[in-house]
Amino acid sequence: MDIIEEFKRYRERMNAEILTRGGLGIKRFFALDDRVYEKGVLDVRTKELMGLVASTVLRCNDCIVYHVIRCVQEGVSDAEFFEALNVALVVGGSITIPHIRRAVETLDQCREKQRKGESLEV
Amino acid sequence: MDIIEEFKRYRERMNAEILTRGGLGIKRFFALDDRVYEKGVLDVRTKELMGLVASTVLRCNDCIVYHVIRCVQEGVSDAEFFEALNVALVVGGSITIPHIRRAVETLDQCREKQRKGESLEV
Amino acid sequence: MDIIEEFKRYRERMNAEILTRGGLGIKRFFALDDRVYEKGVLDVRTKELMGLVASTVLRCNDCIVYHVIRCVQEGVSDAEFFEALNVALVVGGSITIPHIRRAVETLDQCREKQRKGESLEV
Amino acid sequence: MDIIEEFKRYRERMNAEILTRGGLGIKRFFALDDRVYEKGVLDVRTKELMGLVASTVLRCNDCIVYHVIRCVQEGVSDAEFFEALNVALVVGGSITIPHIRRAVETLDQCREKQRKGESLEV
Amino acid sequence: MDIIEEFKRYRERMNAEILTRGGLGIKRFFALDDRVYEKGVLDVRTKELMGLVASTVLRCNDCIVYHVIRCVQEGVSDAEFFEALNVALVVGGSITIPHIRRAVETLDQCREKQRKGESLEV
Amino acid sequence: MDIIEEFKRYRERMNAEILTRGGLGIKRFFALDDRVYEKGVLDVRTKELMGLVASTVLRCNDCIVYHVIRCVQEGVSDAEFFEALNVALVVGGSITIPHIRRAVETLDQCREKQRKGESLEV
Repeated sequence: MDIIEEFKRYRERMNAEILTRGGLGIKRFFALDDRVYEKGVLDVRTKELMGLVASTVLRCNDCIVYHVIRCVQEGVSDAEFFEALNVALVVGGSITIPHIRRAVETLDQCREKQRKGESLEV
Repeated sequence: MDIIEEFKRYRERMNAEILTRGGLGIKRFFALDDRVYEKGVLDVRTKELMGLVASTVLRCNDCIVYHVIRCVQEGVSDAEFFEALNVALVVGGSITIPHIRRAVETLDQCREKQRKGESLEV
Repeated sequence: MDIIEEFKRYRERMNAEILTRGGLGIKRFFALDDRVYEKGVLDVRTKELMGLVASTVLRCNDCIVYHVIRCVQEGVSDAEFFEALNVALVVGGSITIPHIRRAVETLDQCREKQRKGESLEV
Repeated sequence: MDIIEEFKRYRERMNAEILTRGGLGIKRFFALDDRVYEKGVLDVRTKELMGLVASTVLRCNDCIVYHVIRCVQEGVSDAEFFEALNVALVVGGSITIPHIRRAVETLDQCREKQRKGESLEV
Repeated sequence: MDIIEEFKRYRERMNAEILTRGGLGIKRFFALDDRVYEKGVLDVRTKELMGLVASTVLRCNDCIVYHVIRCVQEGVSDAEFFEALNVALVVGGSITIPHIRRAVETLDQCREKQRKGESLEV
Repeated sequence: MDIIEEFKRYRERMNAEILTRGGLGIKRFFALDDRVYEKGVLDVRTKELMGLVASTVLRCNDCIVYHVIRCVQEGVSDAEFFEALNVALVVGGSITIPHIRRAVETLDQCREKQRKGESLEV
């Protein structure tokens, strides 16, 4: 299964629908959600790594896929990924292991796409 | 994928098995779970909307599918759905977004079934 | 302990500080959080009851205190409270019972304040 | 602080109120909650230990206090307690540590009461 | 779908990768996770049942599948399974029902494999 | 209330007891928990900020107090704190607000101790 493409297509289609049909409150939340990862006094990499750790301890696969892709785009190394996932594993316990599997599987697919020169645009 | 049919078939099959093989305590819990959404001083619509919001902040897709179907049966409008989902989104944060996507996808399939005059019985 | 006064003083003091020192993103989130409970196609009462159920299944005592006060202000009856809490109890399980205790204790204190003609402003 | 007495007094007072004023659904839930820990094919000790592990991974201090008291009444040894808490710690991660502290503090107070020949009735 | 085979293949493949590429901290966590279910003053059966209850209240399907298989290997009877799941259902509420369905479906597939004399090795 | 001193005293006393009386598995978990925040390819500051975000979205006040103190020791600025808390707020929703209040209150007490030249040792 191409986790990345499947996630992107579904996310794009459903977000478009939510933003078209949902009210102003929902649109504003989505805008806040985009902006919170932008560069401030903390850089984008650090914020995306925080997003990955938060998604892993909260055990949300879709959020994990999103932040793995974004971290790869920001140049996070494999060693940095595994250290961030280790923090999540210790904080969140063995219950996060299935989600760490998904994070690593997504990372593998991102690296494969990078090797092939394919876009990771999300 | 027909989310609604797949959910109904799986739910029916497994509930039958659980109620046949499980003990009295499990049967009684299932009975309580049915009754809690019945009309009392609060009407069924309000209770099903509460069930939808609770399922969304707790991030349980199967529970979301169930309550979306039940809300549609009770005549909840699209505008009402999006306001309820907005409450869940603000309370539960961006981690609920994948589940809001699933709620909206299920709503779409319910509306499609309504247009075709198909049953939503659950 | 006066749950209501203690909650209000702490909330006011800390929110003032967060809104003064926090960035624009935090301010906007707090604004969204206020607006989501305003009248739309769903009335304020229904939305506050949803907030109460969501807070109970997520087991957040401070959020429960806030929504109990707001529900009382909106004229929610004791019978309606107990039906809403029953939904939360069935969805969230026995783990919510300590929080249902806190909800009922807060409701008692609100009713006491109402009898004495004291303000519930929050 | 006498964790056990404080918990028992508050629990008794609020449960009485909830059972008096709450509807039939709530009463039935409380009855199910009592019965599920009674002897069946699994013995009471094993079920109370399960209740302790579940309360710890869900991070509910009041539930932890309750099940620690009940486990002590059922003759669970300190070594058995620490093995059960170790399972909860590994499953639930470091986020459970503050709750494991509370469990051990409660266990200490139970042992102290046992030494003094005081009742642990709950 | 063969839940058990699919789970085992995915788990084996991804764990191998995580243990090869992850750092020492991750390896040690996985070792602790294995050891915590070994015989101590509590027997393996009791610990695996605790793991099942914890996984169910935390609503992690992969963890549920793992502990169902392990419980079957340890000779847990159907009646014991349903009592353990009943504890999880009461503690965790109706939100656990979809996961109890998955537990029972996995149990069925384990029993089927046992009837056919197939390995449950995990 | 002196949040920091109270937390430190309780933590020290209970950890000592847990490590004395708990088995090898618990000791090893505590060691892993210490080491995971040590400098690796990610620096200590980044890891402590991750710990703070994870603790906030998981809504654990004691864990928040610990990581706020550690972040202050590592020289995290107020602006960086508020950006990290903003990530947690957006990911985890309004249900995290009471915990963000606690984080900011703890930060204030840390700054006060720094002004007085008092130790933050934890």
